[in-house]
Amino acid sequence: MPELRKDPIISRWVIISTERGKRPHDFVVEPEVVKGGFCPFCPGNEHTTPPEIMAYRDPWTAPNTPGWKVRVVSNKFPALVTEGELDRRGEGMYDLMNGIGAHEVIIENPDHRATLSTLSLPAFADVLYAYRDRILDLSRDPRFRYILIFKNQGRAAGASLEHSHSQLIGLPIVPELVQEELSGSLAHYRLKERCVFCDMIRQELQDRTRVVSENDFFVAICPFAPRSPFEIWILPKNHYSSYTDLSDAGFLKLAEIFSETLRRLDIALNRAPYNFILHTAPVRETQLDYYHWHFEIMPKLTLMAGFEWGSGFFINPTPPEDAARYLREIQLDAGAATAAVS
Amino acid sequence: MPELRKDPIISRWVIISTERGKRPHDFVVEPEVVKGGFCPFCPGNEHTTPPEIMAYRDPWTAPNTPGWKVRVVSNKFPALVTEGELDRRGEGMYDLMNGIGAHEVIIENPDHRATLSTLSLPAFADVLYAYRDRILDLSRDPRFRYILIFKNQGRAAGASLEHSHSQLIGLPIVPELVQEELSGSLAHYRLKERCVFCDMIRQELQDRTRVVSENDFFVAICPFAPRSPFEIWILPKNHYSSYTDLSDAGFLKLAEIFSETLRRLDIALNRAPYNFILHTAPVRETQLDYYHWHFEIMPKLTLMAGFEWGSGFFINPTPPEDAARYLREIQLDAGAATAAVS
Repeated sequence: MPELRKDPIISRWVIISTERGKRPHDFVVEPEVVKGGFCPFCPGNEHTTPPEIMAYRDPWTAPNTPGWKVRVVSNKFPALVTEGELDRRGEGMYDLMNGIGAHEVIIENPDHRATLSTLSLPAFADVLYAYRDRILDLSRDPRFRYILIFKNQGRAAGASLEHSHSQLIGLPIVPELVQEELSGSLAHYRLKERCVFCDMIRQELQDRTRVVSENDFFVAICPFAPRSPFEIWILPKNHYSSYTDLSDAGFLKLAEIFSETLRRLDIALNRAPYNFILHTAPVRETQLDYYHWHFEIMPKLTLMAGFEWGSGFFINPTPPEDAARYLREIQLDAGAATAAVS
Repeated sequence: MPELRKDPIISRWVIISTERGKRPHDFVVEPEVVKGGFCPFCPGNEHTTPPEIMAYRDPWTAPNTPGWKVRVVSNKFPALVTEGELDRRGEGMYDLMNGIGAHEVIIENPDHRATLSTLSLPAFADVLYAYRDRILDLSRDPRFRYILIFKNQGRAAGASLEHSHSQLIGLPIVPELVQEELSGSLAHYRLKERCVFCDMIRQELQDRTRVVSENDFFVAICPFAPRSPFEIWILPKNHYSSYTDLSDAGFLKLAEIFSETLRRLDIALNRAPYNFILHTAPVRETQLDYYHWHFEIMPKLTLMAGFEWGSGFFINPTPPEDAARYLREIQLDAGAATAAVS
């Protein structure tokens, strides 16, 4: 059973895999993504993954067979396990609990060669719908307090399999960074009676130096204090605290700006690896006035080194105003997205 | 002039290099350390670095010439600059200030091939003395509120030059992670009237499962909730809040346990890259009852990916009890350290 352990000084939680403990020789410092060869996420190989939890499929196709557009399965090597009790306890001065949680893989499309940025807009929207449907389903389990959705694109960003996929981790606690965001935005709300993200969107749309693109529903900006060069946030222009509140029309608009943003990044940075994270309110906390859901996309261009580890600061060699200008000026082929995998 | 910018939601600071802005094609995703070839840190090349700020030298040798044992220079590509005023200001809802600070390089020894783990104990102690002397000197500048000392060993840990060196950044603010440590340990002190680190040391020395080694003055442990596999903390057994309070006898004992720890890590992990960070009290805050200085050493074996970026959690595949046992069981050649570079 994995353990969730809390640092006694700064209350930072870590997940310790006590059962599959890696010994020194188990660490390959530069793991390689196997190119070509067998892929458990490709159609026809459904029996090699854990059974599917959910799939968007062609009518009359059976679970765990080909015919799916998006397929969600449990992670074969989960960081947390779904069966068991939390069993919060102490060990002298230390606090720990069982590593209970969900760890799922969202296989974004059947084509091994596709990436999110090459998907058609309807196919991209299906991935975004799958995120929502999994959050809604897991929100019914009272043990979960937060559902974190993220993507690691490319080996340097943490992807161990090449076939494009996102991940979901359902957690029994609200993670530290989300708590900081919630308390920071609550502090602003108490002072101003306004959402800090709404204020930010208003200032950015007026100033425009950090705006990458926008449509009726969304805006993509390089944030004022980005950790990573070319970091981009995609935010709904209207105030919503939960991703699951988005309307069907909203999902199509999100697919549009998200796809466009990833294509701009692919061109600007020669398909550099990236991570993105969905920031949304904790489960069962609906319609918060002070919080505003959004995606944060972070290209992997710099290293986390001693200074960052020691300070929590980041050193960013690219001002976001420069990054936004480069990204804005990229000429996109309007037909590219729809011409690709459909 | 670099800028220090604050995220308006979670108050995280980033350093933006506004003058040497990196454009997309400036990012080489996997920078290579140049092996062999010209090294600005080698004796004879002193004129290729900024002028030396401090050096431990043979008598009658001139500054910026060979004959030094440890040499400290300004970073040629500093993240922060020393000249100018802080000029704290707003930009609409955002907060920023000028990137004022010190950024120095501590060249640990003249031998290009040496690493900290191959230095003799007196040579290692000289590096540790240099940390203290630079902190004491910079503490007199009222603009600095924190002096952060850290080391990046190996390319994957962020080192851009091969010749072994540490770095120092003097900051006009106490960084977020240090503030969290201070407030976390103060909260424990208020509750218990005891230092949380002293409590931890007491429990670890009694339990012993996470102890790697100890001597009269220090203990090296794998912490209960480590972010990284094989993470090790070295702590003074007696309560001191500032590194600069250490006695001369203490420095020799620190060199002894630090050298031994790095040699254990080198053997266990085949000289894997690592970062270490000196955690000490802010400048001019002397003899805090609730804080306890220490070093944190983090081997670079895992990647920071979407889950970690989104949650602030870490997933660690090696329980610290296992790591400590492996490290304890390594047989060290007692003569190795002194037989090396002297």
